[in-house]
Amino acid sequence: MAGKPVGKRAEGRANPGGASGTGAWKASGIVTLLTDFGADDPYVGMMKGVLLSAAPRLAIVDLSHGVPPQNLRVGAWFLAHAAAYFPPGTVHVAVVDPGVGSGRKLLVAEDAGHAYLAPDNGILGPVLSSAARVFELDPTRFARTGASRTFHGRDILAPAAAALATGLSPEACGSGPIVPAAGVVFPRPKRLAAGRIECEVLFADRYGNLILSARPSDLAAEPARGGGVEGTWIVEAAGRTIPVRGVYAEAAPGELLALVDSYGALEIAVREGNAAARLGLRQGDTVILARSS
Amino acid sequence: MAGKPVGKRAEGRANPGGASGTGAWKASGIVTLLTDFGADDPYVGMMKGVLLSAAPRLAIVDLSHGVPPQNLRVGAWFLAHAAAYFPPGTVHVAVVDPGVGSGRKLLVAEDAGHAYLAPDNGILGPVLSSAARVFELDPTRFARTGASRTFHGRDILAPAAAALATGLSPEACGSGPIVPAAGVVFPRPKRLAAGRIECEVLFADRYGNLILSARPSDLAAEPARGGGVEGTWIVEAAGRTIPVRGVYAEAAPGELLALVDSYGALEIAVREGNAAARLGLRQGDTVILARSS
Amino acid sequence: MAGKPVGKRAEGRANPGGASGTGAWKASGIVTLLTDFGADDPYVGMMKGVLLSAAPRLAIVDLSHGVPPQNLRVGAWFLAHAAAYFPPGTVHVAVVDPGVGSGRKLLVAEDAGHAYLAPDNGILGPVLSSAARVFELDPTRFARTGASRTFHGRDILAPAAAALATGLSPEACGSGPIVPAAGVVFPRPKRLAAGRIECEVLFADRYGNLILSARPSDLAAEPARGGGVEGTWIVEAAGRTIPVRGVYAEAAPGELLALVDSYGALEIAVREGNAAARLGLRQGDTVILARSS
Repeated sequence: MAGKPVGKRAEGRANPGGASGTGAWKASGIVTLLTDFGADDPYVGMMKGVLLSAAPRLAIVDLSHGVPPQNLRVGAWFLAHAAAYFPPGTVHVAVVDPGVGSGRKLLVAEDAGHAYLAPDNGILGPVLSSAARVFELDPTRFARTGASRTFHGRDILAPAAAALATGLSPEACGSGPIVPAAGVVFPRPKRLAAGRIECEVLFADRYGNLILSARPSDLAAEPARGGGVEGTWIVEAAGRTIPVRGVYAEAAPGELLALVDSYGALEIAVREGNAAARLGLRQGDTVILARSS
Repeated sequence: MAGKPVGKRAEGRANPGGASGTGAWKASGIVTLLTDFGADDPYVGMMKGVLLSAAPRLAIVDLSHGVPPQNLRVGAWFLAHAAAYFPPGTVHVAVVDPGVGSGRKLLVAEDAGHAYLAPDNGILGPVLSSAARVFELDPTRFARTGASRTFHGRDILAPAAAALATGLSPEACGSGPIVPAAGVVFPRPKRLAAGRIECEVLFADRYGNLILSARPSDLAAEPARGGGVEGTWIVEAAGRTIPVRGVYAEAAPGELLALVDSYGALEIAVREGNAAARLGLRQGDTVILARSS
Repeated sequence: MAGKPVGKRAEGRANPGGASGTGAWKASGIVTLLTDFGADDPYVGMMKGVLLSAAPRLAIVDLSHGVPPQNLRVGAWFLAHAAAYFPPGTVHVAVVDPGVGSGRKLLVAEDAGHAYLAPDNGILGPVLSSAARVFELDPTRFARTGASRTFHGRDILAPAAAALATGLSPEACGSGPIVPAAGVVFPRPKRLAAGRIECEVLFADRYGNLILSARPSDLAAEPARGGGVEGTWIVEAAGRTIPVRGVYAEAAPGELLALVDSYGALEIAVREGNAAARLGLRQGDTVILARSS
């Protein structure tokens, strides 16, 4: 009830398309882009130019370009929670790449009918299931003439994405299957005592909502009367005690609340306000979940 | 001459398509998105994924995601002034939704051949004409499996938008016609004396231009010699007297001016500078328009 | 090796399409938009509405809307370095237009199979080769009914772009050929002594990387042993001596480095950090390149 589980593979849900790990790749002609490039520079535009030069009919969708610079954890979170909303056959390109030009590999993966392209830096970890097939991309095959040493998203991944989106199979893009580098791991909530769990702030969103590293399922081993989260748990943060409610509108304007958000995670918010600013909390700060009943 | 009237229905202009309120719905396959989600989070990307999962060939256009959080007035202004630039058959989805999860309804409307989807919180008021047909959306019909309680834009409105954009008629999406909640009202200019009118700052745009709650038509009852605004009215703001000119380039670089802007509204600007920063004015501050001749 | 030359016409490279200056215009149906409108206001959305009203099947791509307000130099840089990544037949619309409403002309140009629309304020200078054909756009032919005096991007250039993108030839859009106004010129590096060159900071990108007004070719007349830049030149900036490396990953996290970036320009960076903030440098500040071997 409270919040749907998103990030289907991160959540270990069954694969709706049914093709995971075994099926033939069927491209939908849709490419999503997730980067830390921001909205101001022309780097995203350059990638789109390369994609359209190779395949003028692609549908290119911005998943987000607002990943904080080099922040693999937030990038991995965004990808794990957004990719599953797209149809099977979509190619997801993730470019958060502090190691560009080092020895790090480039990956091409297939999972549940979706394809993924990214540096082998862990960003794909949370989105991929155990059934994913992961290959090492052959960079020389896709590199544009005069490719730079600093922008593989444009010069290697974009041409590879266009090839995948027009039908080339993931396994034909490289060698393997291989075992990728360790995936990004979101911090696990820690049980301090019965009905008392410590988690942390993962990031703040545009509204100043503080997304926490705990989900209702993390509280299931500590059942409250009634079994739910709302009304039976409270959040202790920055010296404040904050009630868990069902929706923003159950708080008064300006009031602090916690709730299960549209990521399916617990979140601290201020109705029509900014919780990050109000509480002075940010990524990595500690928060306590406590059973109130 | 000075500035075209935009927001055709807000302005009460005749309906160019001729179909208002009576015609059959003809979808163009174009969906616009207006939200307060900002550019950084993946919320817009999620909505696009839902849209493309239902209808992979849609053309999805960002109208703006920079509405200040929960600011219905600015959201309504953006929609009322931008929707009419799109072709008939376009579906406009507006998600500024502080009341998500409360009892507020969701609306689907048809007006002048365009369709609109939004919470029933007044945001559609300025864009809709008196000939609009407004229905209550049936949320259970469109809700995705496992829909959240906090993101109806993704979980209900996006599926409904895909249905409309592929041909389902607005009236088939819900029940009614109904009378929606009171629409957002932009503050009306106030006549203080002959040739002296008070208005307020609605918002500042990216350039720091201050958009005012007055249009040339508001000054028509106070005709100046010659009948125009330019050269015959001045603006008093933050202790400064500012001339009304025709275009930015008529001021010297760095100089304050007022003019009829591309919204068709009066606006205070600094040529190649930032009037909001220069004058220290912001939303809700009072400004005087005075006849100078 | 170090960085591919981008901005092909700015670099004087041969025209890969072979059609420059003589060929028939073949529209690809792709339109790119480059503006200083930012991401928050609905101005870009309005332009897209006008484009789609005229030609519903266009592919519209945001090249960037983050040009600093009225900054022709950065706008020209973005366009010159990004346009060539798109396929021939693309229409590029550049709207950085502080002189809107003054006597400045509007231009339509064709070069190497691409078409360009922009105010005649120099922004097209760096992207166009000497073989470009430049015409004065006939504004009355394309102006929308009730066109504003302050937003020619929406009211004149967008309709013209739709016409070009659906096949109208550049020369049919206006009169000429004409000689446009002087183009934006990026500051040239200055030789101070043997192996000692002064350049300046052009702008900082999202990462705080400082893009410099010098390229490896500017150092070619001052050959170091081995002929390359990496390891043989250093950068002196804000009292610091900074080594030139090949890629970001060759520096330690938090360490200053210079390198040839994905624009093909020299750039000062901090690995996983922000050089603009670290050094306190910004547009126009002076930097020295010195031969170290």
